[in-house]
Amino acid sequence: MSKDLMPNRYTPGEVALPKREAELIARRDSVLGSSYRLQYRQPVHFVRGEGMWLYDPDGRAYLDFYNNVPSLGHCHPEVNAAMAEQAGRISANTRYLEPKLVDYAERLIDTFPDELNRVVFTCTGSESNDLALRIARLVSGNEGVIVSSYAYHGTSAAVAAVSPNLGDAVKLSPSVRMVSLPGPEGVPEAQAADFFEAQIRAAIQDLKRRGIGVAALLFDSIFSSDGVWVDPLGFIAGGVNAVREAGGLIIADEVQPGFGRTGDHMWGFERHGIVPDLVTLGKPMGNGFPIGAVVGRKTPMELFGRTARYSNTFAGNTVGIATADAVLTILQRDHILQNALAMGQRLRNGLEELAHRSPGIRGIRNAGLFFGVDIGLAGEPPASWRAMALNVVNAMREDGVLISTTGANEDSLKVRPPLICQAEHVDLFLASMERALLAS
Amino acid sequence: MSKDLMPNRYTPGEVALPKREAELIARRDSVLGSSYRLQYRQPVHFVRGEGMWLYDPDGRAYLDFYNNVPSLGHCHPEVNAAMAEQAGRISANTRYLEPKLVDYAERLIDTFPDELNRVVFTCTGSESNDLALRIARLVSGNEGVIVSSYAYHGTSAAVAAVSPNLGDAVKLSPSVRMVSLPGPEGVPEAQAADFFEAQIRAAIQDLKRRGIGVAALLFDSIFSSDGVWVDPLGFIAGGVNAVREAGGLIIADEVQPGFGRTGDHMWGFERHGIVPDLVTLGKPMGNGFPIGAVVGRKTPMELFGRTARYSNTFAGNTVGIATADAVLTILQRDHILQNALAMGQRLRNGLEELAHRSPGIRGIRNAGLFFGVDIGLAGEPPASWRAMALNVVNAMREDGVLISTTGANEDSLKVRPPLICQAEHVDLFLASMERALLAS
Repeated sequence: MSKDLMPNRYTPGEVALPKREAELIARRDSVLGSSYRLQYRQPVHFVRGEGMWLYDPDGRAYLDFYNNVPSLGHCHPEVNAAMAEQAGRISANTRYLEPKLVDYAERLIDTFPDELNRVVFTCTGSESNDLALRIARLVSGNEGVIVSSYAYHGTSAAVAAVSPNLGDAVKLSPSVRMVSLPGPEGVPEAQAADFFEAQIRAAIQDLKRRGIGVAALLFDSIFSSDGVWVDPLGFIAGGVNAVREAGGLIIADEVQPGFGRTGDHMWGFERHGIVPDLVTLGKPMGNGFPIGAVVGRKTPMELFGRTARYSNTFAGNTVGIATADAVLTILQRDHILQNALAMGQRLRNGLEELAHRSPGIRGIRNAGLFFGVDIGLAGEPPASWRAMALNVVNAMREDGVLISTTGANEDSLKVRPPLICQAEHVDLFLASMERALLAS
Repeated sequence: MSKDLMPNRYTPGEVALPKREAELIARRDSVLGSSYRLQYRQPVHFVRGEGMWLYDPDGRAYLDFYNNVPSLGHCHPEVNAAMAEQAGRISANTRYLEPKLVDYAERLIDTFPDELNRVVFTCTGSESNDLALRIARLVSGNEGVIVSSYAYHGTSAAVAAVSPNLGDAVKLSPSVRMVSLPGPEGVPEAQAADFFEAQIRAAIQDLKRRGIGVAALLFDSIFSSDGVWVDPLGFIAGGVNAVREAGGLIIADEVQPGFGRTGDHMWGFERHGIVPDLVTLGKPMGNGFPIGAVVGRKTPMELFGRTARYSNTFAGNTVGIATADAVLTILQRDHILQNALAMGQRLRNGLEELAHRSPGIRGIRNAGLFFGVDIGLAGEPPASWRAMALNVVNAMREDGVLISTTGANEDSLKVRPPLICQAEHVDLFLASMERALLAS
């Protein structure tokens, strides 16, 4: 299947649009590059956000169970106040001494295992992964990168070239190797670790035979774009060791699982009991303010820093730092991880009950508040599963609930609400999903 | 000369530091990656900014004649109010309809020649150049990129690989070719266009012979990192035509000259009477908020957009858009370009008078409020010029005025004040520079 187009998207002519939205889309199309995609058969149109909710111009509320950037909810007043206060005081760059940058760097590092004790700031998760690849390639002296079959790591040229999820239209690097995951291949959990390690060792062998060598294993520990494959815990450890033996670095892409999304830990890699060499941060770090980071072990970070100059104009500016600092304070003070864990469990229980009552749920996987829910009727062909998943997503959108799809066949629902969601939101979501399954 | 280290930097042990700064640096070094550099022999330490001024913890004011990100001045209250107001309302992403994104895209496009009528947003100038290279390579089917000898275009892997300014520690791409500029080579103005075109044609020929082909000429129209080479007007036109004939695209990197820095035009390429295929924006676009863009002709933008998926989580978010919209409003309403032109002329006149009175100024080049001022005594060796430039920069820092160095030999002062500067600031700057020249 070609994955160059996202299936959950607006296609001109597919549905009749209200005049207001049709006109706005026409204006969009005449000024924005055509790389922009709108989600849903009938695009959504929002003018206000608050907490778990987004509002259209008519005041209709949509429950957001999809956006993992505003982890603390849309328009968080305390985060915004910190941003505005700092913007009125100073926005220094990192070539000047400014104490807030250092204060926050120390606080951030404190959330990591001791070995991970250096940070470089960026503006986006793509920049974080791009920088991590630069570091890994310089430090290892190798070029090869190992990723999962449907990995997506970002938009820069170097990162897009190791993101098979972008499909045929974006050329892969000759030095990237994809490894299958045990879950989607139906490998039993007891054999998952061996399966993964064997895949990694074969990729390393191939990279070595071609003189490319392995620079890094780059992975998102919940494998979100592969369809959310979070278990069994520790299944990646043997593969990690194999890459290290071959001189490669381990890069944990925490753009999706990081900052408490999994509920049980601040960082997704901790679930697997490993400590990476480099960790990349993005999305929820500033609850929407463009800020990311690479956190790493001292040795590779120093080796890179002493040789290559890396200066990122906006990254580490004091406004972004103050915003991220407020996010971290709230995450810790308001026990957001515990909430993510509790609400994740409530949602999982509800989905399991729903799977008993309704046909159409083939599997449920989650870590905290990141869910992959496989849709489709057993015995039917996978194309029908994809169609049904798309129908569920669009029926829920009509019903005022936002989610989307993921996975190799795009037949899994991708569900990742802001981490502040409460029982009432989980219950609203489950009721909407039950209606959508019945209608799809 | 190796250019991997910026000459105007703090070197541990070179000067004795006050306890407060020494402690802050020690804390920085133990948490930040060592790729971070501090400017000046004695680093500056700022905790407040306002308009043209930055303030240290003791309340001492420093006149900012260096930072081209806060073009409207530090902590502009109207820009910040727009940002805060929008952050309290909604920060939508580009997969949802939201009218402000379209409104701003239309306003931005209106500032360009008619042929440039599509925009894709990014978060940084590096992301803009990275995306422009992806587009040029996909559209041309070629890989080669032509840049100037000391070009700097950003930090991503793909962009750093075409940025010779980063020095030996950052490997250049096998498909990049550097061309000398007529100015630094001492070519008379009457022969500048032919010289540049011949360089470009030779680079194209070499790229073709190796089967690489030319994807793009990527240039900053004021060649800031080469030492600010702004004249003669139109000298790049023949080279531009040669690249087009060979199937390459023209990418104007407007991160430095754009948004009115040159005073005479909104965009630096306009000074040379050409219309590029792609234009990349960054630094001053949001007066400090991380936002950038690629503006381009319809055909390449559509061709890229139809095939490759490009989704940038933070880019085009409504808070960044509202901030950039306020910047554009103020630029136009407050006649900031006219001010840049007038103050640029005042500064130029002052520098020319200073050059008559004081030895040590070998040349003055500017477009609006971007200046390169060559320092050094005629007849002395270039190493002494570099040392003198560094002394001037650091003497002015001691005197409370911020600038830095640029150019192949780093012997030119890089002077680029916020565009709101007034006559009093220009006069303060000139007086400080005269003192620094006498002392250096």
